[in-house]
Amino acid sequence: MASVNENFLKLQAGYLFPEIGRRTREFQDSHPDVKIYKLGIGNTTEPLVPTVIEAMHKAVDDLSKRETYNGYGPEQGYQELREKISEVKYKQREVDILPEEVFVSDGAKPDCANILELFKVGKVGMQDPSYPVYVDSCVMDGWTGEAMKNSQYEGIIYMSCTEQNSFIPNPPEEKVDLMYLCFPNNPTGAVATKAELKKFVDYAIENEAVIVYDAAYEPFIRDKNIPHSIYEVSGAKECAIEINSFSKWAGFTGVRCGWT
Amino acid sequence: MASVNENFLKLQAGYLFPEIGRRTREFQDSHPDVKIYKLGIGNTTEPLVPTVIEAMHKAVDDLSKRETYNGYGPEQGYQELREKISEVKYKQREVDILPEEVFVSDGAKPDCANILELFKVGKVGMQDPSYPVYVDSCVMDGWTGEAMKNSQYEGIIYMSCTEQNSFIPNPPEEKVDLMYLCFPNNPTGAVATKAELKKFVDYAIENEAVIVYDAAYEPFIRDKNIPHSIYEVSGAKECAIEINSFSKWAGFTGVRCGWT
Repeated sequence: MASVNENFLKLQAGYLFPEIGRRTREFQDSHPDVKIYKLGIGNTTEPLVPTVIEAMHKAVDDLSKRETYNGYGPEQGYQELREKISEVKYKQREVDILPEEVFVSDGAKPDCANILELFKVGKVGMQDPSYPVYVDSCVMDGWTGEAMKNSQYEGIIYMSCTEQNSFIPNPPEEKVDLMYLCFPNNPTGAVATKAELKKFVDYAIENEAVIVYDAAYEPFIRDKNIPHSIYEVSGAKECAIEINSFSKWAGFTGVRCGWT
Repeated sequence: MASVNENFLKLQAGYLFPEIGRRTREFQDSHPDVKIYKLGIGNTTEPLVPTVIEAMHKAVDDLSKRETYNGYGPEQGYQELREKISEVKYKQREVDILPEEVFVSDGAKPDCANILELFKVGKVGMQDPSYPVYVDSCVMDGWTGEAMKNSQYEGIIYMSCTEQNSFIPNPPEEKVDLMYLCFPNNPTGAVATKAELKKFVDYAIENEAVIVYDAAYEPFIRDKNIPHSIYEVSGAKECAIEINSFSKWAGFTGVRCGWT
């Protein structure tokens, strides 16, 4: 007899967002003159820049002629793009990431979720608050117990991000096998210095843990003292998998392309 | 300590394709005048038709202007496309599938693999031979034991497709929780009649099993007696999940779009 993956039954988002929607509608109905700003699920609003549009038109034209038609692309991504990512995002910042180490994907969100499949289920560490995709993916893949009343999950080691620690937690005191880190952080906006990241790298090496590092908001970094990549921290190549996205770049929003 | 998902260690494809490559190169080196046709991993070769190219250019233009820019699309697919699929692929064949029942995705392959996540790991039935994605996905998700010397996997219930049964097997004698069926079949090309599919539907209902039905090659069906959808068989809506793709349609090859 087929049965449902019971981990899905632990998910709370299915309750949370419809509940927010229900309360919003009720409030709006009883307060029709109030303008409500929705800060829940976001979306992008700005069109793509002309350079990108031109390149997309050219790519479509390439699909229209046998001489330029390629079929399915290479499963790791086009070599030219992998070389550019290696060069522009890493080598120009004195980080040695080879094109062969870059996996191009349909965005940081799927990669953040799917990366779990590579690992044996274990103990996961998580910034709190964090982008819900990390938590929900861990729930669906069996890395957690049940949801608790405080809407945390049993089994996850939470690292509180609070005003007291300037939203940069210390590594957990318990051992974890894998942890998600996101800097610049979604949702708090906090950024981590090299010294702060170094603590997590040292922890990961000491505990033979893996850091899944979501750098999707990296293009917003302006301060020269803030690292753009966790690989700017010594030892990180031993323990960290960095995931990034083109989706947050001005001019390339809302179309799904990222890399790991 | 982080550990690898040990199910990945059971995969054989990592050995098979490099081994085919090695033998091919050796043979080619010793027989430089022989022209080798590679029938292994396929790809598409024909460009897209003008209607599709035009629509793609229009979609790119829509991304270029704020008035027509949409942001991320709805996660189930654009409603207009879901309505068209419901209408053209189902209702016109007197199959009642609502737009709300159609999930648009980045192709039949990912759906065939990812659908497993919805289910509790159990016993799986598989046509033999079959498209390797079904088997490898089951291996990675823990539905099998180790690979055996005959390159089958322990734990899978195989349904042999042979010349004796015209490449249409009977449902398994053992109980399975989930089975993959593919008609027109990749790789044998066999098609199933309604009566043949009905046996599988009856089996699935009796055993409370789920049929994952890969109909990607459906556009090639010309015989009026061959069903295009498993939902043309009574009872199938109770037990079958049909997956299809635009990738095999003349004029829309090699770009990733499908539905479940």
